[in-house]
Amino acid sequence: MTPPARRAALRELLRAAELDALLVTDLVNVRYLSGFTGSNAALLVHAEDSADAEDRSRLCTDGRYVAQSAAQVPDLPLLIERACAQALVEAAGTDGVRRLGFESGHLTVDGHAALADLTAKKRDGVRLCRAPGLVQRLRAVKDEAEIEVIRAACAIADAAFAELVGTGALRPGRTERQVAAELDARMREHGAHGPAFDTIVAAGAHSAIPHHQPTDVELASCDLVKMDFGALHGGYHSDMTRTVVLGHPADWQRELYELVATAQRAGRHALHVGVEVADVDSAARTVITEGGRGEEFSHGLGHGVGLEIHEAPALAATGVGTLSSGMTVTVEPGVYLAGRGGVRIEDTLVVRPGAAELLTLTGKELLGL
Amino acid sequence: MTPPARRAALRELLRAAELDALLVTDLVNVRYLSGFTGSNAALLVHAEDSADAEDRSRLCTDGRYVAQSAAQVPDLPLLIERACAQALVEAAGTDGVRRLGFESGHLTVDGHAALADLTAKKRDGVRLCRAPGLVQRLRAVKDEAEIEVIRAACAIADAAFAELVGTGALRPGRTERQVAAELDARMREHGAHGPAFDTIVAAGAHSAIPHHQPTDVELASCDLVKMDFGALHGGYHSDMTRTVVLGHPADWQRELYELVATAQRAGRHALHVGVEVADVDSAARTVITEGGRGEEFSHGLGHGVGLEIHEAPALAATGVGTLSSGMTVTVEPGVYLAGRGGVRIEDTLVVRPGAAELLTLTGKELLGL
Repeated sequence: MTPPARRAALRELLRAAELDALLVTDLVNVRYLSGFTGSNAALLVHAEDSADAEDRSRLCTDGRYVAQSAAQVPDLPLLIERACAQALVEAAGTDGVRRLGFESGHLTVDGHAALADLTAKKRDGVRLCRAPGLVQRLRAVKDEAEIEVIRAACAIADAAFAELVGTGALRPGRTERQVAAELDARMREHGAHGPAFDTIVAAGAHSAIPHHQPTDVELASCDLVKMDFGALHGGYHSDMTRTVVLGHPADWQRELYELVATAQRAGRHALHVGVEVADVDSAARTVITEGGRGEEFSHGLGHGVGLEIHEAPALAATGVGTLSSGMTVTVEPGVYLAGRGGVRIEDTLVVRPGAAELLTLTGKELLGL
Repeated sequence: MTPPARRAALRELLRAAELDALLVTDLVNVRYLSGFTGSNAALLVHAEDSADAEDRSRLCTDGRYVAQSAAQVPDLPLLIERACAQALVEAAGTDGVRRLGFESGHLTVDGHAALADLTAKKRDGVRLCRAPGLVQRLRAVKDEAEIEVIRAACAIADAAFAELVGTGALRPGRTERQVAAELDARMREHGAHGPAFDTIVAAGAHSAIPHHQPTDVELASCDLVKMDFGALHGGYHSDMTRTVVLGHPADWQRELYELVATAQRAGRHALHVGVEVADVDSAARTVITEGGRGEEFSHGLGHGVGLEIHEAPALAATGVGTLSSGMTVTVEPGVYLAGRGGVRIEDTLVVRPGAAELLTLTGKELLGL
């Protein structure tokens, strides 16, 4: 969908919420709805379904982005002001907006207070209404063009990992930090803007730390090595975790791996249109709980991935809602045995009618390197 | 200052604000006050000046960070809950806190509503009080250990730039994107965790775009080339901009450069303890305005730099407050002639008694390469 089509889809949500307009302050949402990528902006989207809705909507940014905003957002009126949200609330009031939604999951308490002061002072009838997550709801379902970009981001991570393994760079004596730097460098060589998040390489006992930061500790023979990484490409993220053993896997490592792999498969197979997100978490979690390791699976099963590395939907016991076709999500169960080691296996997939489509294509057999 | 010393300094601010405790939700502030670097956490700091204040304060994070939080925060009680802010508000209520400050410049409207619902339900007498910017105020003034880390981050950027120039990599035919990637790679080689922000390389007419994103456009002979970059090192950022000409500078380029260089010098020389931040902006801006280019200097003069690339204080016409010794700030005037080219010159400096100390040591004469 083009930005104008996304704004049209948003208008339907605004009218359903009985809002006259939405003030978009989350920069990721501004980008999604307008194409603008600068570091200071806000967007006003009018709700009415009429020919002049686009003319009344507008993007506001500051003086640093005059040329960039004109180039990236040719189809909306532009406003140049440093205090973007304030400027747009004033514009909304002048334009007769009464019920003005704001992104209450993003706007801060102080930011809201400043806008409320302004509307009180102006007495122009604007009423600020909490409207959380509307754009996130749209963003959760990707169109084919977005999926293509995420597919490319996943392919970059796949290629980097294949080279890492193929060149023998995963071997005893290398440090976690060196391996992480090499993954990052190879992803850049393959066209990534950079890593999608701080790459995790966790060797030996460190693999039992779910979000370990790479150190100068060396990979050792018989170690579990857990690598969680992804590429940022064209504004979109990929996310993948693989766990390997350096040398011949011990029985406990193999058992742990099989348990997590079985749970991960169950999670992937539970990805169907219309399924409750909490049930997807449960499908994988049950396997691990029945394997006696429920306590050691200390996080949710997965999350949406797109313009942000973590976005809607949350595949977790506390998650609410159902899956739709086009949602791009991770499935990443893990079991962590403190002081010994841990295993996590993670893919990025697209929910489709029928089976979900796998985007991270690196194999998931237990590699003994 | 160690995290305990920082918490002690915060307690003085809390008592002055008549708060019983502060709920810290901004992760950068959590890191500053505790040393914890994970991606989900909150911190409760009790205000009273007593022996058990530290025992009553606590850090909350989730199950992914059990080991990391114990290692990084040995000196505070730990709480493991996914919903950190909620868990700490409950803990505060149980512990008799009445006036509980929260970071209203960080907490979202929805986040606040959830906490307010919780205190209403618990009826434990906790009152949530807006307390913006308290930790930011402490963070604005760096101690010598922090300055050492920022100095190292600046030295990394200096070294990367010197190599870029020394190896002839800044030449016609190279693309903006190639030059940016090389700066980033060289900063990493010198020990940076990564770039401090998306590196800007802007050639020719692009140099007139203050925040240009590098493209595949080639650098051309007689072009102005503006490079704005910095290193992230040890959690701290550096920030520097240099503008050069490929070949012999034309008269208009030289004049533009001299105007900005004179303004930048005036800004640096205005950095004194006790000076109003708006007056520092004015010292540089006056030079450019009197040179007839006031309209083309479309942003503030500078900003604090530290654990965040942009932090307090803002050196801008709208900035409030005065400079203190130990503040680390940028001075970065720019003049941008749309369609022709622009010049920005930026240093990172430390405010000191007497003259400010320059941390970015790369020369500022106009390089004709």
